[in-house]
Amino acid sequence: MSSPSRDPRTGATHPGPADTPPERVTALVEAAAAAAPAVAATSPVNRERWLVALAEAFESTAARLVELADAETALGLERLGGELGKTAAQARFYGAVTAEGSWLSARLDRVAGNAPVDLRRANLPVGPVAVFGASNFPFSFGVAGHDTLSALAAGCPVLVKAHPAHPRLSLRIGQLVAATLADVGAPAGAFGLVVGFQAGLALVDAPQMRTVAFTGSQAGGTALVQRAGARPDPIPVFAEMGTVNPAVVTPAAAQADLAGIAEGFLASFTLGQGQFCTKPGLLLTPRGAGAANAVASALSAVPPGWSLTERIAAGYHDGLRALVSAGARLVGEGCRAEAGFAVAPTVLSADLDDLQPGSRLLEECFGPVALVFEYDDLVQLRAALGRLQPSLAAAVATAGPDDPDTGWLVAQLSTRVGRVVVDGWPTGVATSWSQQHGGPWPAASRQDATSVGAAALDRFTRPVAFQDVPESALPAALRNDNPWGLPRRVDGVLQPPKGVGP
Amino acid sequence: MSSPSRDPRTGATHPGPADTPPERVTALVEAAAAAAPAVAATSPVNRERWLVALAEAFESTAARLVELADAETALGLERLGGELGKTAAQARFYGAVTAEGSWLSARLDRVAGNAPVDLRRANLPVGPVAVFGASNFPFSFGVAGHDTLSALAAGCPVLVKAHPAHPRLSLRIGQLVAATLADVGAPAGAFGLVVGFQAGLALVDAPQMRTVAFTGSQAGGTALVQRAGARPDPIPVFAEMGTVNPAVVTPAAAQADLAGIAEGFLASFTLGQGQFCTKPGLLLTPRGAGAANAVASALSAVPPGWSLTERIAAGYHDGLRALVSAGARLVGEGCRAEAGFAVAPTVLSADLDDLQPGSRLLEECFGPVALVFEYDDLVQLRAALGRLQPSLAAAVATAGPDDPDTGWLVAQLSTRVGRVVVDGWPTGVATSWSQQHGGPWPAASRQDATSVGAAALDRFTRPVAFQDVPESALPAALRNDNPWGLPRRVDGVLQPPKGVGP
Repeated sequence: MSSPSRDPRTGATHPGPADTPPERVTALVEAAAAAAPAVAATSPVNRERWLVALAEAFESTAARLVELADAETALGLERLGGELGKTAAQARFYGAVTAEGSWLSARLDRVAGNAPVDLRRANLPVGPVAVFGASNFPFSFGVAGHDTLSALAAGCPVLVKAHPAHPRLSLRIGQLVAATLADVGAPAGAFGLVVGFQAGLALVDAPQMRTVAFTGSQAGGTALVQRAGARPDPIPVFAEMGTVNPAVVTPAAAQADLAGIAEGFLASFTLGQGQFCTKPGLLLTPRGAGAANAVASALSAVPPGWSLTERIAAGYHDGLRALVSAGARLVGEGCRAEAGFAVAPTVLSADLDDLQPGSRLLEECFGPVALVFEYDDLVQLRAALGRLQPSLAAAVATAGPDDPDTGWLVAQLSTRVGRVVVDGWPTGVATSWSQQHGGPWPAASRQDATSVGAAALDRFTRPVAFQDVPESALPAALRNDNPWGLPRRVDGVLQPPKGVGP
Repeated sequence: MSSPSRDPRTGATHPGPADTPPERVTALVEAAAAAAPAVAATSPVNRERWLVALAEAFESTAARLVELADAETALGLERLGGELGKTAAQARFYGAVTAEGSWLSARLDRVAGNAPVDLRRANLPVGPVAVFGASNFPFSFGVAGHDTLSALAAGCPVLVKAHPAHPRLSLRIGQLVAATLADVGAPAGAFGLVVGFQAGLALVDAPQMRTVAFTGSQAGGTALVQRAGARPDPIPVFAEMGTVNPAVVTPAAAQADLAGIAEGFLASFTLGQGQFCTKPGLLLTPRGAGAANAVASALSAVPPGWSLTERIAAGYHDGLRALVSAGARLVGEGCRAEAGFAVAPTVLSADLDDLQPGSRLLEECFGPVALVFEYDDLVQLRAALGRLQPSLAAAVATAGPDDPDTGWLVAQLSTRVGRVVVDGWPTGVATSWSQQHGGPWPAASRQDATSVGAAALDRFTRPVAFQDVPESALPAALRNDNPWGLPRRVDGVLQPPKGVGP
């Protein structure tokens, strides 16, 4: 078996890498488990060096990586070049986060009482992590994307499953990461790549694997959650899944600049052929504002494009039919390429009364389609928002800081989503200390987790307390002399970095 | 239906509170959901006042509460008085933690780039929390125990299910908490109590409930995890479950002070009739040290006692038979009371070769029993430790700071447990910033969570990012003027409390 590589523009097939045989998967898992203590014991500053080296490796091979990615994804050289540049920046960011050291949350207490104890606690790396990257961001959620980078930053060996939408690129990046980590002295076994569906399942089942990170569809994420939950020792799966992200136009905003909002919305939901988990899939606008037609009127200006895979294109066309069956009406359709996995951007409209539990209208259709709804009044809008499924993000288009509806909309949406955007679109996800990319089910399997930003490391740690453990047997993060120069909390009070414990 | 109250010392039955009817459960859930925004918006300093008021209420009614608890648990006035005092201290501790504000993890970034954004993130309260307390700590893991106190501290309304092992006490504490919170001005709906099995399930199923916290058995925790996972919108269950906690005696320690170790071990595993989730259930000692007989020789000095419930007593006797069927041998048995739910402390021994996957020897037997194993050498010891299930805690008895085996034992055990104790016993769990009470499955359903200590609040929060949200629509934790005086991270740099954001 092998994973064939397809060209979305033509459908042509190129030979891809062979599936990883079971005995090779076992060897990689054993190597990862053997490397785990050494990876965990590597100082954060040294792990930052690994991540900087990865950034430099991506940059120095950018042209060839982007060319290969384009051949397998048809996302275009400009977009892919930008994404690879951001991926290098992400590697540096996660390096800086690990070096800063707050993620270890090191704490040292002298607990008074009848039997005083010396109690210390840190978030220690969990051990080998299995990463299942996404189809739609071959670099930033790929073999060396957010999950891999943040897991390495947190001190965990990583085994990645190559994505069938870009198997040759996955292999190339995998080789680059392995070689780069070897060059900078990372332990053998700190990183590995497997190819094939069965190899992926074997990672989830292997007793040595401690955590799974996944980015992709509801179906894929749910299947992994169930598989990992059925182990004799269930392990956590951090699945970040696609959702229908709502965008709300306030009455004042519709009056102030409907044309601008329609333009921004169109650009956001068709970006990357609508293959963004943060795509705004629903637009809720005041009745009579003419938003659906305003959005549809610019459809013809969207350049034709292709889905990442034949299956995604077929799923898109099935999804459009299912949406129409559920009550949606076609408002407009854009251009479609003549060959390959071509899809046309599409605007549908539907009635808020059809947004009922169980309706297909509430579920994601992966691709360049959006649904426009009109609300009669704020009471109807509020009720409709309460019927939506939780999502990764939500957007509110306002008429500016004095818009009277911003407050309640942000408050209501913030109880159901991971990120609320005002007067912007959710498709850009900055990598920063404050980012939150996740949300309540079905946005993610763990509502307290993020797959982007500084807190992404937290998924790959587990707190351990050490009671009256002698200095020589403590992990570095908790030793009296604070060899890693961490910020630590001592007797409940935050100490600046380089402080010395009790 | 009602929950009868039993006296463990005699088995006598007293009438207990009536089960909460479904319509009353629904009303409580709706009240909790309605109160959630107001509870979340209450400043941490005000919520600290609620918790201090609870502490004062416990202290001012201590004598009556302890008397009632003793009638339902037979744990004794001294132990229960101490536990209630600790519970009051815990309320003050969680109050101080919420007021300190780090748990909100407030972050503010100005993200540069082509389209600069203002991004802010905080861990916001999730909303209504269902709490299922434990049988064995009627105060500190009861109606107003760690889960309830830390959820209120985190800004979440709480609905507690009364425990059938102490239904009258549950009702009394529930009334006290409700009245005290009302007195200090907490919103109606911030706290409620339900009685009965069906009422508990209704809490897990109610759409408005956002998180479940549980302390108890493997079977109970697993059932709740499955039930909450089968909701149309699965919600997290933080189940802290009983485990077999190993205690290892190094060769040097056995030579230095076997008698002292045997004495400490006996006192720890028989504490509270062995009804501690942190009970050291396995002792691993060098072959020929005579540990089993040393432990058993003092059994007769242990005063006779009673299980909390008839079912626990029956489970204990069933468990002893099952351990013997799995290869354990009786070494000694202590005294047993003549009436009620009486149990006798018991020492068993078994062979390390019988510690194989699937063996009953690897599972908890709730009650005053421990298994003593002898290892031939460190290779055999290390292999045996690798076959144990993960647990809440582990203990290592050493010959002092120079013991050559402390380091590798602490390192190996720390990959499998939540807390490692050196030269002490795991049955005391201090409430402090550094505590970790949890562990990998089956110790807990979430390996990254703790049900004791400052991080207990984290279970009841969910991060939300706000992108370009105007000041007036931001939650208090993220406003420019930092009205709650929180420590915040601004552009990646930790700012001291009372700092003002960008």
